[in-house]
Amino acid sequence: MSRLVMKFGGTSVATLDRIKRAAKRVAREVANGHEVIVIVSAMSGKTNELVGWVNETSPFYDAREYDAVVSSGENVTAGLMALTLQEMEIPARSWQGWQVPLKTNGAHGAARIEEIPTANLDARFADGMKVAVVAGFQGISPEGRITTLGRGGSDTTAVAFAAAFDAVRCDIYTDVDGVYTTDPRITAKARKLDRIAFEEMLELASLGAKVLQTRSVELAMRYNVKLRVLSSFGEYDETAGTLVCAEDEIMESNVVNGVAYSRDEAKMTLLGVEDRPGIAAAIFGPLADAGINVDMIVQNISEGGKTDMTFSCPVDQVARAKKSIEDAKASGAYEFGELVADQDVAKVSVVGIGMRSHAGVAAHMFKALKDENVNIKVITTSEIKISVLIDRKYMELAVQALHDAFELEKIGTA
Amino acid sequence: MSRLVMKFGGTSVATLDRIKRAAKRVAREVANGHEVIVIVSAMSGKTNELVGWVNETSPFYDAREYDAVVSSGENVTAGLMALTLQEMEIPARSWQGWQVPLKTNGAHGAARIEEIPTANLDARFADGMKVAVVAGFQGISPEGRITTLGRGGSDTTAVAFAAAFDAVRCDIYTDVDGVYTTDPRITAKARKLDRIAFEEMLELASLGAKVLQTRSVELAMRYNVKLRVLSSFGEYDETAGTLVCAEDEIMESNVVNGVAYSRDEAKMTLLGVEDRPGIAAAIFGPLADAGINVDMIVQNISEGGKTDMTFSCPVDQVARAKKSIEDAKASGAYEFGELVADQDVAKVSVVGIGMRSHAGVAAHMFKALKDENVNIKVITTSEIKISVLIDRKYMELAVQALHDAFELEKIGTA
Repeated sequence: MSRLVMKFGGTSVATLDRIKRAAKRVAREVANGHEVIVIVSAMSGKTNELVGWVNETSPFYDAREYDAVVSSGENVTAGLMALTLQEMEIPARSWQGWQVPLKTNGAHGAARIEEIPTANLDARFADGMKVAVVAGFQGISPEGRITTLGRGGSDTTAVAFAAAFDAVRCDIYTDVDGVYTTDPRITAKARKLDRIAFEEMLELASLGAKVLQTRSVELAMRYNVKLRVLSSFGEYDETAGTLVCAEDEIMESNVVNGVAYSRDEAKMTLLGVEDRPGIAAAIFGPLADAGINVDMIVQNISEGGKTDMTFSCPVDQVARAKKSIEDAKASGAYEFGELVADQDVAKVSVVGIGMRSHAGVAAHMFKALKDENVNIKVITTSEIKISVLIDRKYMELAVQALHDAFELEKIGTA
Repeated sequence: MSRLVMKFGGTSVATLDRIKRAAKRVAREVANGHEVIVIVSAMSGKTNELVGWVNETSPFYDAREYDAVVSSGENVTAGLMALTLQEMEIPARSWQGWQVPLKTNGAHGAARIEEIPTANLDARFADGMKVAVVAGFQGISPEGRITTLGRGGSDTTAVAFAAAFDAVRCDIYTDVDGVYTTDPRITAKARKLDRIAFEEMLELASLGAKVLQTRSVELAMRYNVKLRVLSSFGEYDETAGTLVCAEDEIMESNVVNGVAYSRDEAKMTLLGVEDRPGIAAAIFGPLADAGINVDMIVQNISEGGKTDMTFSCPVDQVARAKKSIEDAKASGAYEFGELVADQDVAKVSVVGIGMRSHAGVAAHMFKALKDENVNIKVITTSEIKISVLIDRKYMELAVQALHDAFELEKIGTA
């Protein structure tokens, strides 16, 4: 019997009516001959209520108790979903993390999945259970305490179950209908992708984070779990949503598959840094310790034993980054002339596995930006992504220009 | 180290402020040198919300899923209480039923406690834990499913923990400040009892049910657990509340300790029933099958092979009882002349373990009622209780008269 994993997020189970709607989708897959593992989130708003109570009770809370409280939201949905399916005469049963058991390490609040033994669910499937409704986002620690998996935990739960139970697919039902070539709010030409490679999905994180948590995509890539993202609210057909899968399952692809952006970036430059071995570590070590999310890093050529070091970070971390750098300078960790911060930049990236085998993608990108008179401030490249920092005011223009330049509104061209 | 069990009901943990207030009472007991097991209910209103969702989803729900959903309310309170205690620098930890484990049978929705192994909590107490906050009302079945204990389950949980851990006392914090000689709404002379025997508490169920569930009192009596009922909201001192304990711990007692009442009773009489062996079983068997809560039963002397059989039941079950009786007659189970229902009666009882050794209590009661011209319709007696059915309109008058006649406003008299 083939196994299918279906995951429903908070907005998809926000009310009893929506749970019923989700259950109908589950029923259809049971009718298609699948044994189904359904992963559910808490009804939307419930987790925030619980987190609010914890924070109000204890600002520096014990993460073990946080987990015990916060995990209860998913348990409620799991029971209600099982009851809803039973009302439709589908043999269903709810499972809390510890009952499966979904074994994690002891890192409360952000636990890592270690193992999902399949024996308990397998035995029930063999007994006639058609649907196991599993509370997402939670597991059990080696000490027998409830753990939660942290941000994106329910998506990660779903992928981990798909891997453990060798599921044919993991369908993530959410409130968007798939992954787009870019943000449809920026250009109406944005097109839903039918398929996207794991690697592209990861590089499109800034677009994709609204759709799928990075962590679940990494896990899916590692275990080669076919992930489908689709809407709980739209009409259903075989091509609904976007399939996130291995590169070799994508027959025809654009060289560039998406244009991503990140609006609130800052560019910081240390002018006149002494150019010596270990200088990068001396600069970026303290920044990491200060919790600064350094993204792009560029080092200019050296002149007279001095160089310029430029990096980008979220604009709301600039003050903290500045303090870290001044402190490091004061402590004698390194020398530099001047620190310049440009707080009005944005990052725009083109992403595509096709660019590995196609030359000229960068040149095509830079020309498109030049044609719109958009000045490029920093460039970084990876195998399947080219990113530039530009003035924030040109961000929408740049995204539209690149979407046009690579003809992303069409399939299998450019 | 002495162990103490403290139980807080839904209104006592309804908000974060009230949880904090309850935690202060726990802190005081820790300072007194106790290791404390706290049993908590769901925040008030939460269980009703969950039950409402279950009923709306599935009117004839699977009790296993009902339990999985409904038990989550207590889990939230347990975690929040543990966090609150930690904020007060008291080493505390939450425990869900399955973690203890509190082992029950598999009767979902109304499970019976089978065993509470003490090893897990004992090990943590030995490690320095001062307070174990246990989610009330729930346990785990032999199949590894969550069970709930049904009505009064949290009180029963508390008493069972007190028995298992050999606690010096089980304090039940609630929204009333103890057990009264009668309902203070009926007479301002009603006096809070400092102590009451288990047996009296059980017979006063109609008064006491607002305070303590019968089931928890039965369990306390069986294991001789000292139960104290007291208010979460009032001032605290050593004599706060009412201690429910074994008879031999009550030095001085009134002959009568309480006047109970039940307002909505009905009296039903079968006139001219054939008087033969087995007739009572023939009448009351079908009534039990129909779910009628028959309370008092009186059989008159027989005349000419016929007798009258009278019983009382809740007034809202009269129609169902009538149908059951007519059906039994139609099926030839037994014969009778006429069925008379009086739907305007109430039951008033006096209760006291002292009446075992005192003659004349019944006579004193009947005289007090006669002096107020209250006509007695049915009488039943047990070792420590005398109950009468009277016209409902005289109920308050009768309660007041009996409270006065036995001088219940005074201690250790009559």
